[in-house]
Amino acid sequence: MSDTATLSRLFATIEPDLEIVDREFQRRASSGLDIMNAAAAHAISSPGKRLRTALTLLSGRLFSYNFDKLLPLSVAFEMTHLATLVHDDIIDRAATRRGIPTVNARYGDQVAILLGDYLFAKTAGLIADVEDFRIDRLFSDTVATVSEGAIIELRTARRMDVSVEHYLERVNRKTACLIGACCKGGAIVGGGSDAQIALMHDYGLNLGIAFQIIDDVLDYTGSEQSIGKPAGNDIRQGLVTLPLIYALQNEHNGRLDQVHRLLHAETPTDEDVAAVVRWVSGTLAIDESLTLARQYASRAKALLTELNDSDDRQVLVELIDFVLARSH
Amino acid sequence: MSDTATLSRLFATIEPDLEIVDREFQRRASSGLDIMNAAAAHAISSPGKRLRTALTLLSGRLFSYNFDKLLPLSVAFEMTHLATLVHDDIIDRAATRRGIPTVNARYGDQVAILLGDYLFAKTAGLIADVEDFRIDRLFSDTVATVSEGAIIELRTARRMDVSVEHYLERVNRKTACLIGACCKGGAIVGGGSDAQIALMHDYGLNLGIAFQIIDDVLDYTGSEQSIGKPAGNDIRQGLVTLPLIYALQNEHNGRLDQVHRLLHAETPTDEDVAAVVRWVSGTLAIDESLTLARQYASRAKALLTELNDSDDRQVLVELIDFVLARSH
Repeated sequence: MSDTATLSRLFATIEPDLEIVDREFQRRASSGLDIMNAAAAHAISSPGKRLRTALTLLSGRLFSYNFDKLLPLSVAFEMTHLATLVHDDIIDRAATRRGIPTVNARYGDQVAILLGDYLFAKTAGLIADVEDFRIDRLFSDTVATVSEGAIIELRTARRMDVSVEHYLERVNRKTACLIGACCKGGAIVGGGSDAQIALMHDYGLNLGIAFQIIDDVLDYTGSEQSIGKPAGNDIRQGLVTLPLIYALQNEHNGRLDQVHRLLHAETPTDEDVAAVVRWVSGTLAIDESLTLARQYASRAKALLTELNDSDDRQVLVELIDFVLARSH
Repeated sequence: MSDTATLSRLFATIEPDLEIVDREFQRRASSGLDIMNAAAAHAISSPGKRLRTALTLLSGRLFSYNFDKLLPLSVAFEMTHLATLVHDDIIDRAATRRGIPTVNARYGDQVAILLGDYLFAKTAGLIADVEDFRIDRLFSDTVATVSEGAIIELRTARRMDVSVEHYLERVNRKTACLIGACCKGGAIVGGGSDAQIALMHDYGLNLGIAFQIIDDVLDYTGSEQSIGKPAGNDIRQGLVTLPLIYALQNEHNGRLDQVHRLLHAETPTDEDVAAVVRWVSGTLAIDESLTLARQYASRAKALLTELNDSDDRQVLVELIDFVLARSH
C-alpha cells in the first residue's frame, strides 16, 4: 500500500476535520497585501503530510473532542511549522522544497523573512482563540526551542566530530519538539489529566525522533522521485546526520578526507555527493540508524499502552508503524 | 535642557519600575546558547529611548497600576520591538544602528534571523503571564501589521511617486501601530473602560506618527553626532520620507533627475547624499513636515483632555511636547 493510501485509511475518521483545518489555515494565513498572499499561497502549495494536525486532533480525541478549540490550535501548529520552514529555507539558501521553488528563491530573502514573521504573528491570534494559558506557554517554549535548535544546527554544520548524543539533541529541538507539542496541546485541550498530558508529550517526542531518523535515512537510501529531492541533500548542505555519524564511527580511515572535502566544498559536485551516499548506504550505518529509530518507536508504543484502549489510540499506534515503514 | 535630562525628569515617578523592566528584559531575552546570548546582549546594548515601556506603564497608571501584569507586558513590547529591529537590519542590509554594529553585521544574517524568531517566541511566554486574551489578540494584530508595513516599505523603496497618504499608511504600520499598542495594552491591563482603551490607543497612534515624522525630519536636519547616524541615512537606503515627498511636490523640475539617480545608485556617494540633504533642508518641506507632526501632536493632546486630570496624564501631555522638540 502506498504511503498516501495508508495515511488516508489511518485518518479516515478525522478526514472531514482535517479538511476544515486546511481551509481555516488558508483563511488565517491570508493578508491584506497581494505579495504576502502570493508568497503564503506559494508556501502552502507545498503540502506537508498533515502529520501535525492529525496528531493534534487525535490527541484531543483520546480524551474529550473539543474541535472548536482544536481547530485554532491545529492551525497554529501548522502555521508555526510553515513559518519555520520559510525561515529555514533562507538560512539553508534552499532553492526548492518538495519540488517547488522556495519563497526565498521566488520572492527574495526580504519577503521570506517578513512572511515568516507575519505567519508567527498570526499564530498568536490563533492561540488567543484557544483561551488556555498553558497553550500560550507551550507555544512560546516550543518556538524558542526550535529557533535554538536551528542555531545549534548552524553552528555544527560541516563538523565531522558530531556525536550521536549531539545529533539527538538537535533532532529533539528541530523536529520532535513541535510534534511533542502537538500531542501535548491536543491532550491539554482535550482535558487530559496532568499525567496524561505528560504521557502524550513523551509519545510525541519519541515519535518525532523516530520520524526524523527515518527522514535522515531516506536522504541516503531514497530516490529523487520518492523523496522529492535528490538523495544526499543533507550532506550537500553540510548537514551531518545519523547515517553518516555511524558510518564515520565504523570506518576510521580512507573516508575521512573524502567526507571532509565534500562537507567543505564550495559547490559539491553531484558525483562527489553520490559517491559518499553510495558508501554510507552500503555500510552497517543504515541498519544501525533504523535500529535506533525502532527503539524510539517502541518507547512511543509502550507509552500508549498506559492509556485506555480506543480506536483513536489504535490509530496512534499504527501511525508509529507508518513512520517506520514510510518510503518518503 | 538635553533630551536625556528632559526624559529623566518626565519619567521620575516610574524610574524604579523602568529599571525593573530593563532587568526583566535582559533575564527573559537570555537563552541556553552562548551565541544567542551574545547576539541578544549585543542587540540590547543599543539602548532605545524606553519610550514604549514608559508609555505602557503610564497608560496603566492612568487607571489602576497593576505592575505585576504591566511588567511582562512592557517586556513583551520591548522584545517585539527589538525582534523587529533585528530583522529590519537584515532586510536593510544595515551595518550599524546607533553607532554599534548590527547583529547581522556582527554574527551574520542566519543568526540574526534566528535571534529575531527566538525573541518573537519569548514574547508569547510573556503574553501568557499577562493572562488576558485581549492582549494576545493585540499582539497578534500588532506584529502582523508591522510585518505588513515592512513589506509595503520594501515594495515602495526608491519610488519617487509616493504620496503623503501612502507615507502615513507606512508610518502607521511601521511605527505608530506598536506605540498605539503599548498605550492600548497598558489601558487594558489597568482596567480602563472600552472607551478609555480606544482613546489611549488613538493617543498612541497619533503620538507615534508625530514621533516618526520628527525622526524623518531629523534625518535631514540632524548631525551625525546628535542622531547617531549620518544625516541622509534614509535616502541613502532608498527610503523616500515626508521631507523629500514635500520637497519633490514643491519643485517639479531640476531636482527630479538628481534624486532619481541617487535613489537608484548602486553605492551612493557621500557627496551626492549631502547635496540632496542640503537641498531638501533648505526648502519649505521641513516646515511643512513639522506642521503635519504638530497636527498629530495636537490630536494626541486633545484626546487626553477627555480623561481626568492627574500627574500621569500630565506626563503624557509633556511627552508629546518632548517628541516635537527632541533633537535626536
